[in-house]
Amino acid sequence: DGIMSTWPKVGKFDAGSVANTFNAEIRAVVDSLVASGRGAPTLVGFLANEDPAAEVYARMTKRACEKNGVAFELRRPSRLKLEDAVIEANKDPKVHGILTYYPVFGELNDAYLRDVVSFEKDVEGLNHRYRYALYHNIRTIEGDKKCCLPCTPLACIKVLEALGAYDQSKPVGKQLTGRTAVVYNRSEVVGRPLAAMLANDGAVVYSIDEHGMLLYKAGAVPGTIKVEETTVETSSVTREADIVVSGVPVKSFTIPAAGMKAGAIAINVSQHMNFGDGVEERCAFVPAVGRVTIAMLNRNLIRLHANFAVTPASAATSAQAHWQPSRSHCITAAASVAVAITAATLIALVRRR
Amino acid sequence: DGIMSTWPKVGKFDAGSVANTFNAEIRAVVDSLVASGRGAPTLVGFLANEDPAAEVYARMTKRACEKNGVAFELRRPSRLKLEDAVIEANKDPKVHGILTYYPVFGELNDAYLRDVVSFEKDVEGLNHRYRYALYHNIRTIEGDKKCCLPCTPLACIKVLEALGAYDQSKPVGKQLTGRTAVVYNRSEVVGRPLAAMLANDGAVVYSIDEHGMLLYKAGAVPGTIKVEETTVETSSVTREADIVVSGVPVKSFTIPAAGMKAGAIAINVSQHMNFGDGVEERCAFVPAVGRVTIAMLNRNLIRLHANFAVTPASAATSAQAHWQPSRSHCITAAASVAVAITAATLIALVRRR
Repeated sequence: DGIMSTWPKVGKFDAGSVANTFNAEIRAVVDSLVASGRGAPTLVGFLANEDPAAEVYARMTKRACEKNGVAFELRRPSRLKLEDAVIEANKDPKVHGILTYYPVFGELNDAYLRDVVSFEKDVEGLNHRYRYALYHNIRTIEGDKKCCLPCTPLACIKVLEALGAYDQSKPVGKQLTGRTAVVYNRSEVVGRPLAAMLANDGAVVYSIDEHGMLLYKAGAVPGTIKVEETTVETSSVTREADIVVSGVPVKSFTIPAAGMKAGAIAINVSQHMNFGDGVEERCAFVPAVGRVTIAMLNRNLIRLHANFAVTPASAATSAQAHWQPSRSHCITAAASVAVAITAATLIALVRRR
Repeated sequence: DGIMSTWPKVGKFDAGSVANTFNAEIRAVVDSLVASGRGAPTLVGFLANEDPAAEVYARMTKRACEKNGVAFELRRPSRLKLEDAVIEANKDPKVHGILTYYPVFGELNDAYLRDVVSFEKDVEGLNHRYRYALYHNIRTIEGDKKCCLPCTPLACIKVLEALGAYDQSKPVGKQLTGRTAVVYNRSEVVGRPLAAMLANDGAVVYSIDEHGMLLYKAGAVPGTIKVEETTVETSSVTREADIVVSGVPVKSFTIPAAGMKAGAIAINVSQHMNFGDGVEERCAFVPAVGRVTIAMLNRNLIRLHANFAVTPASAATSAQAHWQPSRSHCITAAASVAVAITAATLIALVRRR
């Protein structure tokens, strides 16, 4: 019925192999950075809550970084010292990436904290500047520096590509044309960026949250997206969707297997299982993307290191500069020096989305 | 029992007279701007929801602006056109202030929208840059330009000053020393900035939201604040507080009059009445601060106009500059010219907090 030969078969898929592919690429870049004398990038993780899930995520990050040759340092400030600790790391030229394990205070205060992280070190790609760029099809900042993309949505895209959901015979930006996706979650962290990215790639996307549904599509101008109101029913779009990604942070929320189209792709990005029993017998089912998310954090780290890492000569100047959020790019423009990157593999990695 | 003679008596207080005082000052500034040929500032309000409360608020804004000689234009884009409409207004040198009536999509997407508003036009004072400045005791941006403060918290401070809660015999920053305040709400829009401002003025502040309580105090270094964990009970701190401000957006939430200290000040900033019957017989009770909030919007507008309004000569350049959030200050620094302000009353108004 028109499903391409690359479309995945029904069954359960472990995203770990997708993560492994990216981690191997990242390892090669880090090795070349070390060989060239620039040194391995450093990622600092801040764990300031007592959430056991965050502990697990921090251990997973540590393991992936070790595998990739990236220096990872876990810091455990109290939540009330977290903001100052992030600001310190923003200013520290030896730190190339910053990651905070949320939730800390709650949604709105945490949203504030996300924007305290300098965009020069924001491996999560969740700074307002990066989200604004994504929603407005701005691909670079400060001239030709590639933007970071939000990690969990990017992980979903990479999993979909690896599963064969993208039609490689079509041009980039059209490889999901004809596909319908449903995304349960429209937060600024997961669902809204993901809807924008899927629409950018040609899909018709129904974006659902507790307030209702919106429709995301490719715009008339290539690279733009169009968002529309819609009155269709959740259950009917879910039943017809080729791709369903669910990130509802509620234990009792379930999309029953019978509510999915046979042969569709189902990706769970919630800490709870959002899909009902038997979904792997009806769909190509990915129960979690966490390891790919961490690979994307590492990938963003490499990009930020290439974009913003200061050479030893300019580090002293940069460290002394008075840091303020949203101003640091001005300071950097003045203080940093052009960085020569020779490793072809690095260039290839950072050039790709 | 140590209560100063300026402390208000028990009863119900209409904040309208406080608003009138500020509106008269603003009118004088606007008149002097018009007389000097610079023209009246323009405020654009965006109404993109179907909330009757927002309609009322928009009408109140219009009335206050007319009274103050400020040009007010209400625009009604669909919610899906709102972001583009705000970006247009950001770029338009004829617009000096932007105000959006929330909620539009929901808390997190609305938080994103707040940061799409250029800080050069953010009369609400809710841009990340202004909140960061407030929490870190940074009073100016781009050299000597005074920051805007969030309007509703600022309105509470002005109401407290007008009621006589501030001890004018003490130096600025100490005028609430010895006072205890409780703030129900720790959102980035109302409660957290208010807790910071009250602590800046010397009060011990218990800040409460659905996740728990935090304690805000003046720090050891003047102008800094200190935030601490606390295990005290909500009902006991409320019973002992000199000042209780409540902004809980839940209809069923009530602080009973008997739960307040006799002679305390009670200020309601929720759209629902958070205080129980009889509170005006036990406390100095302010049922709403909306008109003062609107006066503060106007006051911020005057400040932004003084800080950022372009002269006719530079307007053309500025309008053509490619606008991006968080970059506009760089562009402005290059494109705008120094603005000579002669009206003494304007200088006096913008110099004050």
